[in-house]
Amino acid sequence: MTSNAQRAEILVQALPYIQQYNGQIVVIKYGGNAMVNEELKHAVMRDIVLLSLVGVKVVLLHGGGPEITEMLGRVGKESRFVGGLRVTDRETADIVQMVLSGKINKGLVNLLQSIGGRAVGLCGMDGGMIQARPLREELGYVGEIVRVDVRPILDVLERGYIPVVSTVGCDMEGNTYNINADTAAARIAGELGAACLVTMTDVAGILRDREDPDTLIRHIDLGDVPRLIETGVIAGGMIPKAQCCTEAIRRGVKKVFIIDGRVPHAVLIELLTDEGLGTMFEE
Amino acid sequence: MTSNAQRAEILVQALPYIQQYNGQIVVIKYGGNAMVNEELKHAVMRDIVLLSLVGVKVVLLHGGGPEITEMLGRVGKESRFVGGLRVTDRETADIVQMVLSGKINKGLVNLLQSIGGRAVGLCGMDGGMIQARPLREELGYVGEIVRVDVRPILDVLERGYIPVVSTVGCDMEGNTYNINADTAAARIAGELGAACLVTMTDVAGILRDREDPDTLIRHIDLGDVPRLIETGVIAGGMIPKAQCCTEAIRRGVKKVFIIDGRVPHAVLIELLTDEGLGTMFEE
Amino acid sequence: MTSNAQRAEILVQALPYIQQYNGQIVVIKYGGNAMVNEELKHAVMRDIVLLSLVGVKVVLLHGGGPEITEMLGRVGKESRFVGGLRVTDRETADIVQMVLSGKINKGLVNLLQSIGGRAVGLCGMDGGMIQARPLREELGYVGEIVRVDVRPILDVLERGYIPVVSTVGCDMEGNTYNINADTAAARIAGELGAACLVTMTDVAGILRDREDPDTLIRHIDLGDVPRLIETGVIAGGMIPKAQCCTEAIRRGVKKVFIIDGRVPHAVLIELLTDEGLGTMFEE
Amino acid sequence: MTSNAQRAEILVQALPYIQQYNGQIVVIKYGGNAMVNEELKHAVMRDIVLLSLVGVKVVLLHGGGPEITEMLGRVGKESRFVGGLRVTDRETADIVQMVLSGKINKGLVNLLQSIGGRAVGLCGMDGGMIQARPLREELGYVGEIVRVDVRPILDVLERGYIPVVSTVGCDMEGNTYNINADTAAARIAGELGAACLVTMTDVAGILRDREDPDTLIRHIDLGDVPRLIETGVIAGGMIPKAQCCTEAIRRGVKKVFIIDGRVPHAVLIELLTDEGLGTMFEE
Amino acid sequence: MTSNAQRAEILVQALPYIQQYNGQIVVIKYGGNAMVNEELKHAVMRDIVLLSLVGVKVVLLHGGGPEITEMLGRVGKESRFVGGLRVTDRETADIVQMVLSGKINKGLVNLLQSIGGRAVGLCGMDGGMIQARPLREELGYVGEIVRVDVRPILDVLERGYIPVVSTVGCDMEGNTYNINADTAAARIAGELGAACLVTMTDVAGILRDREDPDTLIRHIDLGDVPRLIETGVIAGGMIPKAQCCTEAIRRGVKKVFIIDGRVPHAVLIELLTDEGLGTMFEE
Amino acid sequence: MTSNAQRAEILVQALPYIQQYNGQIVVIKYGGNAMVNEELKHAVMRDIVLLSLVGVKVVLLHGGGPEITEMLGRVGKESRFVGGLRVTDRETADIVQMVLSGKINKGLVNLLQSIGGRAVGLCGMDGGMIQARPLREELGYVGEIVRVDVRPILDVLERGYIPVVSTVGCDMEGNTYNINADTAAARIAGELGAACLVTMTDVAGILRDREDPDTLIRHIDLGDVPRLIETGVIAGGMIPKAQCCTEAIRRGVKKVFIIDGRVPHAVLIELLTDEGLGTMFEE
Repeated sequence: MTSNAQRAEILVQALPYIQQYNGQIVVIKYGGNAMVNEELKHAVMRDIVLLSLVGVKVVLLHGGGPEITEMLGRVGKESRFVGGLRVTDRETADIVQMVLSGKINKGLVNLLQSIGGRAVGLCGMDGGMIQARPLREELGYVGEIVRVDVRPILDVLERGYIPVVSTVGCDMEGNTYNINADTAAARIAGELGAACLVTMTDVAGILRDREDPDTLIRHIDLGDVPRLIETGVIAGGMIPKAQCCTEAIRRGVKKVFIIDGRVPHAVLIELLTDEGLGTMFEE
Repeated sequence: MTSNAQRAEILVQALPYIQQYNGQIVVIKYGGNAMVNEELKHAVMRDIVLLSLVGVKVVLLHGGGPEITEMLGRVGKESRFVGGLRVTDRETADIVQMVLSGKINKGLVNLLQSIGGRAVGLCGMDGGMIQARPLREELGYVGEIVRVDVRPILDVLERGYIPVVSTVGCDMEGNTYNINADTAAARIAGELGAACLVTMTDVAGILRDREDPDTLIRHIDLGDVPRLIETGVIAGGMIPKAQCCTEAIRRGVKKVFIIDGRVPHAVLIELLTDEGLGTMFEE
Repeated sequence: MTSNAQRAEILVQALPYIQQYNGQIVVIKYGGNAMVNEELKHAVMRDIVLLSLVGVKVVLLHGGGPEITEMLGRVGKESRFVGGLRVTDRETADIVQMVLSGKINKGLVNLLQSIGGRAVGLCGMDGGMIQARPLREELGYVGEIVRVDVRPILDVLERGYIPVVSTVGCDMEGNTYNINADTAAARIAGELGAACLVTMTDVAGILRDREDPDTLIRHIDLGDVPRLIETGVIAGGMIPKAQCCTEAIRRGVKKVFIIDGRVPHAVLIELLTDEGLGTMFEE
Repeated sequence: MTSNAQRAEILVQALPYIQQYNGQIVVIKYGGNAMVNEELKHAVMRDIVLLSLVGVKVVLLHGGGPEITEMLGRVGKESRFVGGLRVTDRETADIVQMVLSGKINKGLVNLLQSIGGRAVGLCGMDGGMIQARPLREELGYVGEIVRVDVRPILDVLERGYIPVVSTVGCDMEGNTYNINADTAAARIAGELGAACLVTMTDVAGILRDREDPDTLIRHIDLGDVPRLIETGVIAGGMIPKAQCCTEAIRRGVKKVFIIDGRVPHAVLIELLTDEGLGTMFEE
Repeated sequence: MTSNAQRAEILVQALPYIQQYNGQIVVIKYGGNAMVNEELKHAVMRDIVLLSLVGVKVVLLHGGGPEITEMLGRVGKESRFVGGLRVTDRETADIVQMVLSGKINKGLVNLLQSIGGRAVGLCGMDGGMIQARPLREELGYVGEIVRVDVRPILDVLERGYIPVVSTVGCDMEGNTYNINADTAAARIAGELGAACLVTMTDVAGILRDREDPDTLIRHIDLGDVPRLIETGVIAGGMIPKAQCCTEAIRRGVKKVFIIDGRVPHAVLIELLTDEGLGTMFEE
Repeated sequence: MTSNAQRAEILVQALPYIQQYNGQIVVIKYGGNAMVNEELKHAVMRDIVLLSLVGVKVVLLHGGGPEITEMLGRVGKESRFVGGLRVTDRETADIVQMVLSGKINKGLVNLLQSIGGRAVGLCGMDGGMIQARPLREELGYVGEIVRVDVRPILDVLERGYIPVVSTVGCDMEGNTYNINADTAAARIAGELGAACLVTMTDVAGILRDREDPDTLIRHIDLGDVPRLIETGVIAGGMIPKAQCCTEAIRRGVKKVFIIDGRVPHAVLIELLTDEGLGTMFEE
C-alpha cells in the first residue's frame, strides 16, 4: 500500500512532465482494446480529465471499430472488402456516421462529463471541419481528406471543453465519408500545431522481434522508418500507422507516440512519467 | 416574374422585422413534415442561414420522428407504447441517441454548412447540457428534464456558429434519455432568454373549426388557453404543444409561434413579413 | 401583388449576395439626383440601414452639389470657375464646410437614425482624417489629398455606427479645403481595404452609345479604360469618374460600381440581386 | 522670467490637482468671449489638450452666439424674439444647425487637432444623442430635451478622442431643434456622471456687489441659491445659469464652476491650481 | 519501488482533489521548520509549483523567524520583549523589512523560479497593500492592520505569477511595521475570497493529548473553539493561531488547515490526498 | 511670486513635451546624491508620479551605494576591491540583495505610494527577470547579464503601476549577483524599447572643461564618443557611463540623457521644459 507521503512524492515527480506539456495541445488517437474494455475506457477518460486539469489542451480523436460492424450486422447489411477497406455504399456510410458521431462520440462525451470533465463532441461536419472526396471510386464513401479546418476544435478548446472528435468527413454535396482515423489524426494534429500525438494500439509498440516484448524500440528517427519497413520490423498494419506518424511529424507535430492501449493509464505513463511505455517517433 | 426593382423593394420592406430580431435569440423547434420533405427541409435551412446572416441568433432544436421508428424496425426491435409514449429500454435508447445525435443532427449541420451557414451539432450530453431522470419507471429511458445548462449553446453562438441541438438527455450514471422535443424547446428557450420560440407543426395553427382553415386564431393570450382547451378548440396532440408554449412564456420567452411547417419558408414568413402565418401565444 | 410566400422566396434568393458582403466594408459615394429627390433619398437610406443589418460595414461618403450653390447664392457670393472648378476663397470654403458637414452630413445622420439605423457624422477634420493642400494656387481652398487616416472611420464602425463622411479636408494651419468627393471616395475606400466602392451617378452607367441605354457595358477590365477613353465611349465628366474607379482598384478595392442613382434601391439591386444594374470595374 | 527650475516646481505643484481629476469626466461648457477672441480661444484649446493628456476625460460642449446672428443677417433673415428667445422657423433652424455643427463644431475640432489633440465633433443627431420636442409652440424649433443618450460621447472618449459636442437636438420626424447649451450641458454632465462641469461666462463669477469684483462668492451651497436669487445677488441672465448649475448637481455632478472665460487659461487655473478663479456650486 | 503504472494510478487518484481546488485561490502561510530545513523548503516549493500548474491560484505568505534574530544579532542590536512581542524601534523595523522583503521573500521567488515556477515577490508596501498603525505604543513599529488592498496580489495572479508576500505593513508617513504573519494571512485570505488557508506549523495539529499524536483532532467546528480553549486543548501559542483560523473563516474563507510543516509535502498531502494530515477548521 | 495665471501658462508650455513622451516608456536610472539627500529624493519621486500621471510609462531603476557599505560595516564585513569592483562573497551578496531589494527598493515604493503614485517593487529574481553569471571568477558574485526578460516590468506597467527595479541578478542555481546598475539600465531600456533613458549623476553632465560648468556639451552624437574619450573629455568614471549610453542607443533607445541629480526636479526639467539640463546622447 502506498502512503500519502509516497503519493505526494509521486505527484511532485510528475512536475517536470506537467511543465513540459502545460498549455500545449496533445492529440490522442483513441482506439483498439482501450475502447472496448470498460475498465480501460474509464482509465483513459480519467487520464484525459487529469491532463486537461493540469493545463494540457487534450483533443480526443476516435475511430469506430467493432460497434460499426455490429450495427451493420444488426441491420443485415453485409460488407464487401476491397484491399482491406470496407466498400461503403450510402446506407453503410449513414450507419458509420450514426454509430461514430451519435453513439461512440457522444458516449465518450458523456463519460468524460460524468467524471468531472467538460467535453463537447464534434464530427467532421461540424463547422465543415473535414472536407473529403472519394479515395477510390470502387470503395464508395471511403474518403480521403481534401481540407481540414481546425477552427471548431480551437473554438471548443478556448471555451474550456475537451473536444471529442469523430473522423467522419463530408463534401459540398452533403455526402459523408468514412475517414481512416489514424490519417485524420496525423492531419489534424499537424494543423493544430500539436506538441504531440499519441496513438493507442493493441501492441506494445514497435518491436525488433515481434515475439519478444523486450525488444521494444523506444525511439525512432524519421529517417529510419524506410529501413525499418524494408527489414520487416515495421510490417503489416503497422506500416500505415508508421506512415501516419511520419506524416504528423512532417506537418509539424514534435513527437508522435505509438503506445499500448491495453496497459491501464498508458497515456499518463507515457506523458507524465520518466519511462517511455511505447515507441516515440521524432524528427 | 419579379423584377430586381421589386426584389429590392421587398428586401427593404423586411427591414423593420429584421430590426426587431437583430441580436436576439430565436429558438426554432423543427419537426414534422418539414423534416421529411427534402424540398421543405432545404427551404427551412436557407431560412435559418438567412436569419443568422441578418443578425438573428438562431438555435435549431429538432426531434426525431420517422427515422427512429425506421431504424428500430431495421434492427427488428418492436416498440411497446404506454399512454402514447414509447417504452424505451436501453437498446432503444441507444438507437434513439444514435439516430438523433448521429444522423439527423449532423445531417442538418452538414446541410447548413453546404449552403454557407456555419453550424455545430450538440446533444444534451455535450457540456452536460440536459440532465434528466426517468419520467415514469415503466417507460424506461423516457426522461424528464432535471436541469438545463445552456452554456454550451451560448459558447457555440458566441463563436459564430448556429447551434443545432438534439434533445437527448443524460444522468450522472451515463444513461441517455429520450426527451420530448417540445418540452425541451420550451425549457431551453426560457433559459436562453429567447425573444421567440417557433414550433413547426403539420397543421395551419390553432383553428376555431378544425375543418376550416379560415378560422385560424392568430393570437392567443396565455390566459385564454384553459378556456380553449375546455371548449375543445385546443384538443388532442395540440394540448401538450399549447402547454409547452405556455411554459416557454412563463419562463420568459416573449412570443411563441405555432406555425405550419408544410408551407415553404414558413419561418421567414412568420418572422420577416407583416402577415402572421400561424398562431402566436403571448402573455 | 406579392404574396408573403413570394416575399420569403425573394429574401432567400438574396442569401448568396448577403454572404458575399457579410463582414466586408462597402463604401458608397452618394450624390446626384439621389441626393436631391426626397423619395430616392429615403430609398437609399433604407438600403444602407438594411445592408448594415445584414452584416455589411457600410461607409457613406457624400459631396454637396446644389445646396452649396444655393447657400452661396443666398449670401450673395458669386462664384468664378476655372477649368470647371469653383475658385474657393476663405469665405466660400467656410460656407462649403458649413453646408457639407453641418447641414447635409448631419441631415443624413438624422435620416438614418429616424429609420432605425445608428449613424455618426464625420468630416475630414475629425481625428485629422483628411490632410489636404491647395490643388492649384489660383483655385484657393480647392484641395488635393496629402494623407488619409481612416482610424476615425474604423473607430466608429467598430462601435456599431454607420459612418457618414463629408469630404472636407484640412491642413495643419487649420484651413479647410473642398475636396472632390469621387477622388476622396477612391482614396478612402482603398485605405479601408473595402470590398467594393459604389458610386452613384445620374446616368445608367457607361454606355457604348450614349443615346441607347441598351448598350450598357456591364463589366470593364482596368486595362480597357484607356482605349474606352480614346474611342470616346468614356467621355466628358465620366473621364474623371472612371479615373477614380481605376485609382480605387489600384489601391486594393476589389470591385467598383458606377450605378444609376435615379433608380430606386439601385444600391440593393446592384449588391443583393443577380442582375448588375450599372457598370462594374475590376482588375 | 521664470527659470526652468521654477517651471518644474510649478508642474509638480499641479500634482495633487491632476491626481484629483485623473480618469474623471470633466464637461466644459464653452461660450462667450472665449469663443470670439482668437487668443483666448487658442488658450482654451491648449488647456483642453493638456487636461486630456494628464488623464482627464474632457468633453467640450459649445453653443453658437454671434456667428449664428451673423449668418442669419447675411441671408437676410430677420429674427423675432419672444421672451428673450429667438423664434425659430425651419429655415432658421437649418442655419443654426449648419453654423453650430458645420462651422463652429468642426472648427474647434480642427483647432484641437492642429495643436496635437485628437478630437471628433458630434451633434445631437449623431447616434440620436439629444431627442427634443418644441419648448413652446410659438417659438417653433426651439427645443426642450426629451431624452439624452450619452453613448456616442462615451464611445468617442473610449477610442481616445476629445468629444466636441454642439447641442442641437432632433425628433423622430427628422426635425432639428436649437437647444439652450447651458441646459444641455447640465443634462449631459449628469448622464455622464461627470466629476465636474465648468461653465465659461463673461463675468468674474457671482458677485455680492456686481460693481465690485472683490466681492466674488467662491463657494455656494445648493441650498443657498433660492435666497441669493431672492436678494438679487443672482439676477438677470445669471438666474438660468444658476438653475443649470443646480440641475447638474441634482443629476449627480459633484462640482459645478462658473468661471470667467475672459481670463486666459481660466479652465486650468480653476482645475489645476490652488486658487478658485470663479464660483463653485456644490451640494 | 513504485512502478510507473502505480504512479499513474496515484496521479489519477488525485483527480477529485485537483478538481476541487481548480481555479480557486489557496493561501499558504509558510513558516516554522519548513522554512529552515533546506530539504523541506524545496519540498514545499515543489508542492506550490505543482499546485499552480494544476490550476490552483496559490498565494504564498511568509513570516521571518530565525533570520531576523540572526541579523539583529549580527548588527549588535539587542531585542527587548513585552508580552512576547519584540519591541521594534525604527532601526529594528528597517532590519525586519530588509530581511523579510529583501532576503527571505526574494529568496523564495528565486527558488520557485529555479524549479520552473513563475513568481513575483511583494510586500505590504507594494501598491500600498497593507496599511498599518502601531499595535501598542510601547511596542514601537509592531503594527496592526488598518486596511488591506489585495489588488496587487490579484494583478500578479492574473498575469500568471505565484505571488510571494512578506507581511510588512506601512502607513501614510512611510513608516514600516512588523505585522504578525498569521494575522495578516487570515485577513488577506479573507479579502481574496480564498477557498482555503493552510497554516504550516511545527506541531502535528491540534491534539487532545499533547503528548499523544494519535489524539489529533481532524476537524473543528468554529463553535467548538471557545470550549477547546477553556479545556486547555488549545493552549499557549496555539491560541492566537486558532483565533486567526476563526477570523479567516469569519471573513469568508471556506476551510482553514493547521498542518505539520515538518512532514515533507505536507501541503500536497493535505490538499490532494484523501487523508487529512492536520486539523481542519470549518464553519 | 508666481500668479496662478503664470502657473497655468507654464503648465501649457509643457504641452509639447508631454505630447512627445505620452504613452512612451522612459527608464530612469536613479542614483548618487539624489538618492541620499531626502529633499532631492522627494523631488525625484514627485517628478516620477507626475510623469506617470501625464501618460509616461516610467520605469525606475536604482542601484545601492552608501547604504550597502554602511550595512556591510555594521555586520563587520570588510570589503576588498579589485579593479574598482567589490569582491563579493556569498555573505556580501546576501547583504547587497537585502539592502537593495528589501530596504532601498521597497522604501522607494513606499515613498511613491505616499505621494499618490501606484508602485510595485521588483528585483532581477522576480519572474526570472535578470539572468546573470560571474563577471570574473575572482570577483565572486559580481555578475554580468546573460539574459533579460522584461515581461515582469511590462506586466506591472500594464496593470498601472510604476515598476521600481533593483538590479540584482540570479542564476539557475539560485545564486544572486550584484549587477552594475548603469549596465542593467542600458540593457533593460533597450529590451523595453524605451523612448529614453535618463541617468542621474552627481555632475552637471559632460563638460569640455571639467572645471567650468559653462562648457557643458548638450548633445553628443554616438560617433563622437570615441574621440571624446581619446581627448580626455570623457574620462574616469564617466567612461563606463558613456559606454552604457552608447550601448542603450545601440539596443534601440532613442535618446539617453546624463543629468545632474543634484538639481531639484532635474528629470522634469530635462523632459518637460525647453532647456536641456544635461548631456544628451543620440544616434
